[in-house]
Amino acid sequence: MIVEILATGNEVIDGDVVNSNASWLAQRMREAGFEPRFHSVVPDDEGLIAEALRRAVDRADLVLVTGGLGPTVDDLTLEVAAKTFGRPLEAHEESLRRIRGFFERLGRKIGSNQEKQAWLPKGCTPLPNDVGTAPGAYWVEGRAHLAFFPGVPKELHEMFRRHFLPLVAGLSAGTALARKTLHCFGMPEGQLDQDIRPLLDERRELDGVKLGFRVRFPTIDLRLWCSAEDRATAEARVAAAAQKIYAKVGEGIFGEDEVRLEEVVGRLLLERGKTLATAESCTGGLLASLITDVSGASRYFLEGVVTYSNAAKVRQLGVAPATLTAHGAVSAEVALEMARGIRARSGADFGVGITGIAGPEGGSPEKPVGTVHIAVVHPGGEWEQRFLFPFDRLRFKQLAAAAALDRLRRLMISIG
Amino acid sequence: MIVEILATGNEVIDGDVVNSNASWLAQRMREAGFEPRFHSVVPDDEGLIAEALRRAVDRADLVLVTGGLGPTVDDLTLEVAAKTFGRPLEAHEESLRRIRGFFERLGRKIGSNQEKQAWLPKGCTPLPNDVGTAPGAYWVEGRAHLAFFPGVPKELHEMFRRHFLPLVAGLSAGTALARKTLHCFGMPEGQLDQDIRPLLDERRELDGVKLGFRVRFPTIDLRLWCSAEDRATAEARVAAAAQKIYAKVGEGIFGEDEVRLEEVVGRLLLERGKTLATAESCTGGLLASLITDVSGASRYFLEGVVTYSNAAKVRQLGVAPATLTAHGAVSAEVALEMARGIRARSGADFGVGITGIAGPEGGSPEKPVGTVHIAVVHPGGEWEQRFLFPFDRLRFKQLAAAAALDRLRRLMISIG
Repeated sequence: MIVEILATGNEVIDGDVVNSNASWLAQRMREAGFEPRFHSVVPDDEGLIAEALRRAVDRADLVLVTGGLGPTVDDLTLEVAAKTFGRPLEAHEESLRRIRGFFERLGRKIGSNQEKQAWLPKGCTPLPNDVGTAPGAYWVEGRAHLAFFPGVPKELHEMFRRHFLPLVAGLSAGTALARKTLHCFGMPEGQLDQDIRPLLDERRELDGVKLGFRVRFPTIDLRLWCSAEDRATAEARVAAAAQKIYAKVGEGIFGEDEVRLEEVVGRLLLERGKTLATAESCTGGLLASLITDVSGASRYFLEGVVTYSNAAKVRQLGVAPATLTAHGAVSAEVALEMARGIRARSGADFGVGITGIAGPEGGSPEKPVGTVHIAVVHPGGEWEQRFLFPFDRLRFKQLAAAAALDRLRRLMISIG
Repeated sequence: MIVEILATGNEVIDGDVVNSNASWLAQRMREAGFEPRFHSVVPDDEGLIAEALRRAVDRADLVLVTGGLGPTVDDLTLEVAAKTFGRPLEAHEESLRRIRGFFERLGRKIGSNQEKQAWLPKGCTPLPNDVGTAPGAYWVEGRAHLAFFPGVPKELHEMFRRHFLPLVAGLSAGTALARKTLHCFGMPEGQLDQDIRPLLDERRELDGVKLGFRVRFPTIDLRLWCSAEDRATAEARVAAAAQKIYAKVGEGIFGEDEVRLEEVVGRLLLERGKTLATAESCTGGLLASLITDVSGASRYFLEGVVTYSNAAKVRQLGVAPATLTAHGAVSAEVALEMARGIRARSGADFGVGITGIAGPEGGSPEKPVGTVHIAVVHPGGEWEQRFLFPFDRLRFKQLAAAAALDRLRRLMISIG
């Protein structure tokens, strides 16, 4: 069952409102076993709405229309639909009573423009609006199921869940959708694609499971989804496909679905009963902030310092002035001394040191903007690496902080 | 000039990504005097992309396509466009060099799927990607101007502004739109609405300039826009309306358009030749991270500490153990001692101390989750205030960090 989601409204067309109704409806329809295939938006214009409605009922099995049900003159949608499909508007008594009651409770007089909302196309099934005034409408037009919803998200959500979905849930003919997202870090998108490609058939599926990539800087999401007769079958197929991908990509996958990298690191620290402290220069506190975004971080995160100046690196972390002179503030040696310093002073098990050049100023041919040294010092040893992240300042910070988190993760996995 | 904005991508169709590119492009095109009339989204499917492209060039004068330019197998957009319009793909040498250079700087080998991104339809004008790998493309197809952009917002924005808009700016005739956004902090939306309402006529306009509110947590944006025959007239009207709003709201407005609160604070510090250091508990480094998001922050930001544990507050900041015992870690006294401590140890002019309860655990009837004390100590005196921000953990951190920045801003304005 193919779904089209059609929004009407100048505020969406003009970009003043982001069309989050479309993504919300698409997610709900997929969960119910339908297949979203088209989203469209048109302005509050009779001709354009009519044309979009005709195209939608022609190419989709289910057409969900949002917006244009309100009391104002530019709320045209149902009026246009009535004309387009030859279903004259009729007053719907129950909706009229609801709207009158709503205004009575507010102590306001109802205007004729408010009553207009209760006029619905002949033969439709009204969809009650439990949190606002304008009712929706549903009917079958040719082979297409057609439904009209308010554009106000809260009203749309309630109407969709309580009154619309029960009407069409049976149409999805038993197909259920299962999905899983694998979050990857530490390899470029192209590399991941090359690793996984041998697993895919010519339809780009893995044993009937579809795959998609999505960059969510600084990580890459690998999305798996599959439809089957029932949920258990769909889920089993997705789980089996995920297993094959784990076998290829291994530790490059740091988590599934809603989890964030900093949560994974927190969990690993808690499981091992280890503590952490951070010493940051170029990431400017972002690493500490990500770590403390996780509820309960105080159980493993002891402290952090942001030592932008050399003086602070010496005083706060005990970095040797000679090291700064000999190697410069952005060097493997200073990163290691920062990590050792914060570890020793805080008493944490893991100490992280980060120093680099966020730019856009401060680069040199030898140490260009984007250069960063990350060090981790822990009971099992010391690790240090130089990276080059040639991005703008904010993305540089994100990538450097994520690289430090990812290294902590891999070290903790390796030490068991 | 009618505009269609077409997005390709399963992640948008499936609702996993909200199509904010469409609203961004619509706003920019309106500013440039064009008229957005259609938004469409189709999945990563050759037939559906081809059909959508043909319809778009048929009904619009300018067609902006986003997504599907990357290196993976589901990045199909330009390939399909090349077939649909009979323009075979050709290697674009400069883009190939750019991509190779990008991977060389990363120290990685380039795969053939990466090079695929540099194959562009014959006769097109390539649109350089200054912040990523995949170039865009622009050409005239029949009567329509057709442009292809990456789906990654940051890459889209740069490419649109620097390379696309100059190519088509001359095409828009007639009305020009001017707009201005005033960023407000420190008052609720309802208060702002009440302050401004007396300025508005019955159409809710101020001398022909339209007004709108938008909450962009943790700040509120007040948007002004106006259309006129030419840009100068439109801009003059918007500027005059903004003046009237400044007269009402005053210091509650911290900046205009693209500026961020942390940039305003940085500018004020630089102008006064002052330096800053931060001591954070519940914000966990977010304040330092925001400050260091601004390029050149090293000229005024000396250092920060994130003292989650009491031990760290004592050792790093010299907070008296007796103060912690008598008042608790979340108290005015501790916030002040943190601010004094970081100021004294770093030698900065302004020291900030923040301590609070981010939750969801750790609250008490006396100090509920969301309680935060913020202190600023500077040459002119000491300031401290208790706030209650009863939001989830991440929004609590954002609001507390913004409140500290806003206080720094107001103090610096008051001391001149």
